[in-house]
Amino acid sequence: MSERVVVIGGDAGGMTAATQARRMRRDDLEIVVLEKSEWVSYSACGIPYLVGGDVPEWDDLVVRTPDELRARHIDVRIRNEAMAVDLDRRKVQVRNHEHRRNFEIGFDQLVFATGARPMRPDVPGIDLPHVHGVQTLDDGRRLLARARESECEHVVVVGGGYIGLEMAEAFTKWGASITVVDSAPEVMGVLDPDMGRLVREAMQSHGIDVRCDTSLEAIQEETVVAGGDRIKAELVVLGTGVEARSELARDAGIPTGRKQAIRVDRRQQTEVDGVWAAGDCAESRSRVSGEPIHLPLGTVANKHGRVVGINLGGGYATFPGVVGTAATKLCDTEIACTGLNERAASAAGFVFDSGTIESTTRAGYLSETGTARVKMLAERGTGRVLGAQIVGSDGAAKRIDVVAAALTAGLTAGELVDLDLAYAPPFSPLWDPVQVAARKLT
Amino acid sequence: MSERVVVIGGDAGGMTAATQARRMRRDDLEIVVLEKSEWVSYSACGIPYLVGGDVPEWDDLVVRTPDELRARHIDVRIRNEAMAVDLDRRKVQVRNHEHRRNFEIGFDQLVFATGARPMRPDVPGIDLPHVHGVQTLDDGRRLLARARESECEHVVVVGGGYIGLEMAEAFTKWGASITVVDSAPEVMGVLDPDMGRLVREAMQSHGIDVRCDTSLEAIQEETVVAGGDRIKAELVVLGTGVEARSELARDAGIPTGRKQAIRVDRRQQTEVDGVWAAGDCAESRSRVSGEPIHLPLGTVANKHGRVVGINLGGGYATFPGVVGTAATKLCDTEIACTGLNERAASAAGFVFDSGTIESTTRAGYLSETGTARVKMLAERGTGRVLGAQIVGSDGAAKRIDVVAAALTAGLTAGELVDLDLAYAPPFSPLWDPVQVAARKLT
Repeated sequence: MSERVVVIGGDAGGMTAATQARRMRRDDLEIVVLEKSEWVSYSACGIPYLVGGDVPEWDDLVVRTPDELRARHIDVRIRNEAMAVDLDRRKVQVRNHEHRRNFEIGFDQLVFATGARPMRPDVPGIDLPHVHGVQTLDDGRRLLARARESECEHVVVVGGGYIGLEMAEAFTKWGASITVVDSAPEVMGVLDPDMGRLVREAMQSHGIDVRCDTSLEAIQEETVVAGGDRIKAELVVLGTGVEARSELARDAGIPTGRKQAIRVDRRQQTEVDGVWAAGDCAESRSRVSGEPIHLPLGTVANKHGRVVGINLGGGYATFPGVVGTAATKLCDTEIACTGLNERAASAAGFVFDSGTIESTTRAGYLSETGTARVKMLAERGTGRVLGAQIVGSDGAAKRIDVVAAALTAGLTAGELVDLDLAYAPPFSPLWDPVQVAARKLT
Repeated sequence: MSERVVVIGGDAGGMTAATQARRMRRDDLEIVVLEKSEWVSYSACGIPYLVGGDVPEWDDLVVRTPDELRARHIDVRIRNEAMAVDLDRRKVQVRNHEHRRNFEIGFDQLVFATGARPMRPDVPGIDLPHVHGVQTLDDGRRLLARARESECEHVVVVGGGYIGLEMAEAFTKWGASITVVDSAPEVMGVLDPDMGRLVREAMQSHGIDVRCDTSLEAIQEETVVAGGDRIKAELVVLGTGVEARSELARDAGIPTGRKQAIRVDRRQQTEVDGVWAAGDCAESRSRVSGEPIHLPLGTVANKHGRVVGINLGGGYATFPGVVGTAATKLCDTEIACTGLNERAASAAGFVFDSGTIESTTRAGYLSETGTARVKMLAERGTGRVLGAQIVGSDGAAKRIDVVAAALTAGLTAGELVDLDLAYAPPFSPLWDPVQVAARKLT
């Protein structure tokens, strides 16, 4: 009899694991994917761009439909929710929402790919129907339907991180009046405040009302109360971060770690043999600090899933960890970071120097050139690069990738200066902005 | 008495050395820069963009004027040409073209930064006044003056490399009829022919008449004879590569190496103590093959100059070599490469696998996304990345930098796949195109 693997969750982490496993074992592995919504294998990261009109149709965000996956001999069961896992009996209890019945399914191997959910601040009114997270395609559809129904002239975004920024940008295209409320002193908490300030100024220049150091107090019909003020809002978007959906694993007795994300070894296996975890529900390890972190990003989820799939398929793969690279944009302002910011570097016990420079994205003498502000951190003594942050215009953000590669390789600032990077006047000044920043640290 | 350094050549390599040395030694070092033209410290790479109208004025290409440099206590002598170097007596014989007189200047330390010159094919008519190289600002000014005088309806570019492409692009903006003649089977010889073909097709789609496998036979007034055809041309641009200007050093007894470029040690010192070389006249070493190469690029020249300057200034700096990264564009097509192409990898004795993929520069579901073709080479057995080539649309070229960093760090294709690169739908598909290419090699 062939082996059966059950995958709980059909998006980035889970479906990547399933398809990768299928590629490696064509005949002797039964693969069942349980997905509680009706969507699998989609790009949740695309939701803000769909809301903003840059993606024509919902379907465009779907990488593969259940039918396409079934044609690859993956038994995709949508609207089937895993309710409990019995590790001793190797069985999952499932609720089939379509037929309103419960059943049990046995497994030889199991993958937790249960994702993350938007954090919901504990304030009155948080469960009102005009309050929306943006984590799943279902979330996104409900939000867009609501926005289309209501006049949507006033939008309040709670939280000035990636999702907050991207949703704010999306609603600028609706011509809505947008307020972003953030409890921190500055937006984009993954950046240091001196860099976050640039993002806030960019938001303000696009007419977004940004209120930092401001607590959300209550949500009412058509009104948000924050920092003592009443702000009009037909729609409230939650951009306050996400938390791992790990209850199912925890209830089954699987240990969790950082921010309740499921603890895994380097093969993405939990403490239980043949039970794996991938994606936003699973922990990662920072290659810079060596410490566990929870980094709920699509890139990481796909990498987790690939590693799990190879291992399920009888191969051997390990996940080497993350440096923590991310990017986003707000209208014409690009934002990126990698590695540790000042707070994280201090928390990890590093003593470091930092350097911030302003450069251009193309040769300065070209009639059209943008700017890039780069901040870089390097360990004192060794000179090893610890992280970088970029805020700039078109072409600025992806420059972070060189720093990500440098972090992975453990390069010093001096070695980064020596890198042989591509130069031509339309692409870069002679010294790339990341090299100019690194020079400040040598 | 203070020490005197004489720098021969006042562009990227020489002037970077001079300014860097001055930064390190403010008082006790006399720095004399001899420059035979009237221009120092300029961006020759900007000439095509000036011809094409993207740079408003010649002056914009000048980084620092002689007067600005003199204010920094650098004794810049324009129109002063070094005619010979006597290493035993530590003296340079100089021709002052301004006052038409010769003189001698002694040195304690000497820097050769004599640059490179466009190669001139040995055909009849090559010295006619409408035939122009594009290496120095003087070259560029003469070319532009000629183009403005003549009707400039027909331009022939000899050579389909970087300069050839950039000048062809520049003249498309003049509405000129452009023919590119290349003796090789495909344009962009730094790429493998399968990638070069994409560039040729892009050129052709912009109405450029590209003739590969075609020898230049003669140049006449208003006509170029190539491959037996007569091609009309009021202007002929040489884009057939450059050769190191190393005669002065060679005549003084300094050994040269690859393509007659001056041989240097890791501190950029020639075989003679206190005699240095920087920029297009000097050799480099490939960090990929370990072999000496001649890579006449502005980025390399600046890095050479910085190393020489630090050493002149009493510090210690070494140049770790190059991986050979370069980029250019033709209208909306971006081109980049790093490391070894197939020919170079074979010549260096590597056995390798190659993989070519087609991806997008942004998430595929966005309404506006470009494409990127990436070819990557990895050593068989070890999986170590040896090089990559990219041809694509806006945002494609600078992705080569990640591969350049990977080459420097000696990463394998598998390690490149694991890199934690920046993703957001407007910047990249979930797996960056360079990672998709690397996956083909794992």
